[in-house]
Amino acid sequence: MPFTMSQTSLPVFETGLHALLAVLDKAAAHIAAKKIDPPVLVGWRLAPDMFALGRQVQVACDQAKNGSARLAGVEPPKFDDTEATLDQFRERITKTVAYLKTLDTKAIDSSSEREITFPLGPSKGQMKGADYLNHFVLPNFYFHLTAAYIAVRNFGVEVGKRDFLGAIPLKRI
Amino acid sequence: MPFTMSQTSLPVFETGLHALLAVLDKAAAHIAAKKIDPPVLVGWRLAPDMFALGRQVQVACDQAKNGSARLAGVEPPKFDDTEATLDQFRERITKTVAYLKTLDTKAIDSSSEREITFPLGPSKGQMKGADYLNHFVLPNFYFHLTAAYIAVRNFGVEVGKRDFLGAIPLKRI
Repeated sequence: MPFTMSQTSLPVFETGLHALLAVLDKAAAHIAAKKIDPPVLVGWRLAPDMFALGRQVQVACDQAKNGSARLAGVEPPKFDDTEATLDQFRERITKTVAYLKTLDTKAIDSSSEREITFPLGPSKGQMKGADYLNHFVLPNFYFHLTAAYIAVRNFGVEVGKRDFLGAIPLKRI
Repeated sequence: MPFTMSQTSLPVFETGLHALLAVLDKAAAHIAAKKIDPPVLVGWRLAPDMFALGRQVQVACDQAKNGSARLAGVEPPKFDDTEATLDQFRERITKTVAYLKTLDTKAIDSSSEREITFPLGPSKGQMKGADYLNHFVLPNFYFHLTAAYIAVRNFGVEVGKRDFLGAIPLKRI
C-alpha cells in the first residue's frame, strides 16, 4: 500500500479532534464536580499572550478544515468564531469532523507538487502541497491541539497522554 | 513526485528540533538577562504531574530518534538521560539530528505495511509502519515539542508561533 497524503491528514485530524472532544468531556465533568463557573474553563490561558482554551479549540479545528480543503483544491467554508459555551465548542469540533468527511481523498493524494496559496497574517503564504501538509498544517494542528490539552491539564483536570492520542490503531502485545 | 514516509518524518523532525534549539537559545538569553538560576528553567513544569522542560526536550528527541530508527528497521541507539544543563540539552538535540541523518530513507519509505513493535510502558505496542508514523510518532513528537515550547513561553520568554515552526519551506507572497 502506498503512503498517501489523505491518510496523513484526514484520519489524523479526525482522531485528534475526537480525542479533544473526550478531553473536553472530562473537563466538563471536572468543573461540574468542583462547581467552577464554565467561562473560567474556556477562558483559561497558559500565558497571558497565548490564546484561551476556547480559541485553541477553534484554531485546531480550522487548521484541519482549511488545510484539508486547500489540499483537496476546494475553498474551505468559513465557520464564524461565535462559540462561547463548552457545548458550542464541542459542536465546532463535530462540525469540523463532518466537513472533513466530505472531502475528495484522491484530490488530496494528488496535491503533493501543487502550489497551495493560503492566507498568512496580513499577506499570503505559498508552499507545495506535501510541504504545506508536513511543515505547516500538521505542526500548526498539533500545536493548537496540544495547547488545548495542556490548558485542560494545567487547569487541574486529570487527563493523560492516552487521552491526547485518542483511539489510535494500536495493538498492545 | 510521490509522497513518502521519509519526507514526512526526517525533515519534519529536523526542522522541529532545530526550532526547539533556537527557542532554548532565547530562553538562555532570557534567564541571563533576568539573572535566573538555570536549573529553574530546565525544571519548569506546566502542571505538577507533567514532565519538566528538560525532560520534554529529551522525550521529543527520543520520539524522533526511536520512531525514525524503527521505521528504517534498525535498533535505535539509547541516549542516557543524564543532561542537567541547558548546554547538555542543546547537545542532546544536535546529537539526535546527527543520528537522523544516518538513516536509510529508502528503508523508511518501504515500511508503510511493515509491523513495527515498540516498547510501550510495561508492555509492547504494535502498529503498521504508516499508522505508527501518523498516529503515534508524529503526535507524540509534536506533543513534547509543543509542551517544551509552551513551557518556555509560560516561563516568560518572548517566543511566538514562528519560533515554533522554525525554518519551513514557506514563500511569502
